[in-house]
Amino acid sequence: MRIVVLKFGGTSVGTIKKIKKVANIIEEYKKKNFKIIVISSAMSGVTNELIKKSRHISNNFSGAEYDVLVSSGEQVACSLIAGRLIHKGFKARSWLSWQIPIFTEGSHKNSRINEIYKNKITSYLREGGIPIITGFQGINRNERVSTIGRGGSDASAIMFAKFFKAERCVIYTDVEGIYTTDPNQLRKAKKIKEISYEEMLEMASLGAKVMQPVSIQDARLNRIDVEVKSSYVKKSGTLITKRSNIINNKIITGISSTHNDAKVTLVGVKDKPGVAASIFKPLSKNLINVDMVVQNISPNGKETDLTFTIKTEDLSKTKKIIKDNKKINFRKVLFERGVSKVSIIGVGMISTPGVTFRMFQALASKKINIKVISTSEIKISVLIDKKNTKKALTILHKEFKLEK
Amino acid sequence: MRIVVLKFGGTSVGTIKKIKKVANIIEEYKKKNFKIIVISSAMSGVTNELIKKSRHISNNFSGAEYDVLVSSGEQVACSLIAGRLIHKGFKARSWLSWQIPIFTEGSHKNSRINEIYKNKITSYLREGGIPIITGFQGINRNERVSTIGRGGSDASAIMFAKFFKAERCVIYTDVEGIYTTDPNQLRKAKKIKEISYEEMLEMASLGAKVMQPVSIQDARLNRIDVEVKSSYVKKSGTLITKRSNIINNKIITGISSTHNDAKVTLVGVKDKPGVAASIFKPLSKNLINVDMVVQNISPNGKETDLTFTIKTEDLSKTKKIIKDNKKINFRKVLFERGVSKVSIIGVGMISTPGVTFRMFQALASKKINIKVISTSEIKISVLIDKKNTKKALTILHKEFKLEK
Repeated sequence: MRIVVLKFGGTSVGTIKKIKKVANIIEEYKKKNFKIIVISSAMSGVTNELIKKSRHISNNFSGAEYDVLVSSGEQVACSLIAGRLIHKGFKARSWLSWQIPIFTEGSHKNSRINEIYKNKITSYLREGGIPIITGFQGINRNERVSTIGRGGSDASAIMFAKFFKAERCVIYTDVEGIYTTDPNQLRKAKKIKEISYEEMLEMASLGAKVMQPVSIQDARLNRIDVEVKSSYVKKSGTLITKRSNIINNKIITGISSTHNDAKVTLVGVKDKPGVAASIFKPLSKNLINVDMVVQNISPNGKETDLTFTIKTEDLSKTKKIIKDNKKINFRKVLFERGVSKVSIIGVGMISTPGVTFRMFQALASKKINIKVISTSEIKISVLIDKKNTKKALTILHKEFKLEK
Repeated sequence: MRIVVLKFGGTSVGTIKKIKKVANIIEEYKKKNFKIIVISSAMSGVTNELIKKSRHISNNFSGAEYDVLVSSGEQVACSLIAGRLIHKGFKARSWLSWQIPIFTEGSHKNSRINEIYKNKITSYLREGGIPIITGFQGINRNERVSTIGRGGSDASAIMFAKFFKAERCVIYTDVEGIYTTDPNQLRKAKKIKEISYEEMLEMASLGAKVMQPVSIQDARLNRIDVEVKSSYVKKSGTLITKRSNIINNKIITGISSTHNDAKVTLVGVKDKPGVAASIFKPLSKNLINVDMVVQNISPNGKETDLTFTIKTEDLSKTKKIIKDNKKINFRKVLFERGVSKVSIIGVGMISTPGVTFRMFQALASKKINIKVISTSEIKISVLIDKKNTKKALTILHKEFKLEK
C-alpha cells in the first residue's frame, strides 16, 4: 500500500468553509490512488476556549480531566471532516483514539504516543476507507484520555507515518512552507524547496514556528519525508528530508533572527567546575529561558567571561536572581537590551571553507558590529544591535544568493 | 450501598458559575453518605451549535458522525464538573461511555441503552469515588458512539438508576418541579409534591415539558422514584412515584392545556373498516401531528362524524391533504381555528364518581361551551374556545381545590 499521512492544523479546519476545502484536498490524494490517513487538530480557537473554561473552574485543574476536556476539540473536527467526505460519496469515518487504540505513556497533558494498534486501520484502508483520526491524543494503559504535550497533532502525524510506513507525511498549515528567512522581515525571502532535518531543527528552534522541534526530531529518527504546505493555496510546499536526498548547491539554506533579546555578561567569573551550573540553575528554576551561551577559555586559568542572552521581558527578574546568587563569584556584570541574534544555517557549510569569513565580511561591509559569535556544525550565530537586524538579513540573504 | 443518581440538564451546567453550583449540590449528597452517580447533559446551547455546524457541512449529515460530533458536548461538561469536585478535594472523575462501557442498540441518533457494564463503576463507588458520566450516549456493538434519540440524558439517568438499583433518581433542571397547571397561565398554580407515573405521563404528553414521556415510562416500568427539582433554588421538587406511595386525598392532581390548536370535523364519513387509517395515514406521512381524535358511533350504521385536532400552523397543509384524499368519502368538512384543549388529570378520579359532572358544571357556570369531550382512565379532556382557556383553568383549579 502506498500510504500518505495528511495532517491538518487548527487554522486549516478553523471554519466550515475550510473544512470543505480540506475534504477537497483529501479527494485529490484519493484520485492519485493513495491510501490516506488523515490526522486533524481542533478547529482553531476551540482548545484555548476550553482551557479558559478549565482555569475558571480551578487554578489547579486536574490533568486527567484537562485531557478529557481539550481532546473533545479534535473529536468535533474529525466528525465534520468525515461527514463532509461521506457527503461527497467517499467511504470515510472518524476514529477516536480509544477506537484504534493509540496508546500513550507519560503523565497527563504531557504524554507521548508509544504504540498504535494497526489492525483496524489497516483493514479499513484495505476496504478503501479514509480514516479521520484525532490528533494530539491517545489513551494510557489505564484507559484514560491523555494528550500529547509537545508537538501536538504534528507528533501524532509523524507517529502514524512511522507505524504505517507512510511514503510521506504532509503537514497542512497556514503558511506555504519554510522560507529562507522571515518574509515579514525581508520581502525577498524565498520558499525553500527542500531542507534537511538538521537544518530544519536549527531553523525551528531559531524562530521558524511551523513545526515543533520534537516532531522534526521524530521524523528525522524515523527517516520520514515531511512536506509542509498551505491548505489555502495550491502550491508545493517545503520538503523536509534527509541530507542525502537534497540536491542543492547552496551553501546556506536559510537565515533566522530573534528579536527583543537582552545580553548578560559576567566579567571575571572564578573559573572552577560547576560554575556554569550555579549560574543557570536558579534561572531555569524561575522559568527564564536562556538562549545563546558563550564562554571563552580562561586566559589565566583563573577567571573567565560568560555571556548569555535572554528575552528582554525577563531582564529585571534575571538581574535580581544574579545579584542574589551567593554561589557565584565575579568581578562585574553587564546587561544590554536591544540585541538580536542572526544565524545562517546550511549543511553546505560543512564542506565549504570560508563561510564564517564571508558572513563577517558581509556584515562589516554594512558597518554592523558583531558582539558575540557562536557556531555549530551547520549554523553560525552572531549577536548584533537590534536596529541592524533587517540590514543584516538583507546583506546576508544577498551574499549567500538565497533570492535565486 | 445507598445509591442516588443525580442528573443535571443543559441549563443546570450552562455556565462555569452553574457548574460550581452543581458541585456544591453533589457535595451535599456526599455529606449524607450517599454513593452518588452523576449524569450530565452538555452545557446549554452547545449541542445546537454543533448541530448547526453539521447542517452547514451537509444537508444529509452522516448519523454516525453526528453522534461523534454532538457527544463531545457531554464530555466537556463532565470533565468540568469532575475538575471542580477534584478542586474541592473529592475523589471524582469523568467516565466516558466507552470507558464503562454503556452499550446501546438501534440506529444512530436514535438508539437506546440496553446494557451498562457495572464492574468498573461499582468498584469506583466502593473506593468512595464520584463518577461523572456523559448522558445521552453510549457505544454500539461496533464500538461506535451512538446517541439516545428520545429522552436524552434523562433516559441515561433512569437506566443507571435501574442497573445500579438506585434509591432515587434526581433530575435537576431549570424548573422547581411539576405544577398543578402552567404557572405562566395561572399564578395560583402550585408545585405538586408527589405525582404518580401515570399522571405524569398524561401531564407530560399534554404540555408539561419537564421530562420526556419515554423516560417517565422507563421509570414506571422499573419502579424508580424520580425527583424533579431546580438546581438554582434549594427547595424540594416533585416526586414521581408509584400510585401506592402517594398519600393524597386530592381527586385531581393537575390541569394541563394546549394552545394554538385547530379542529377538523369530517361530517358524514362513510363508516367502513379502515376509514380512520385512510384519513390519518397521509397526515402522518406529512409529519402532521394529530392530537385529540373523537369519533362517535354511527347512529344509522352507515355514516359517522369524526373530529380531530392539529396545531394551527398545520391547518392549510391539512386542508389540502384532506381535499386531495381520494380514499375517503364524506359529506362535508369543517375547520375551526382558535380552540384549546383543557385536561384534568388525576388517579383519584378512578375511585371518585362525578368528576366528569363537576368539570362540566364548573365550565358551564362560567358559560364556557364544550365542543368535544374525550376521556381516559385518569384524564378528562375538553375542547373549548381558545379565548376561554384561562377562565377554564381558573375555575377548574378552584373547583378541584388545587391551590390548597
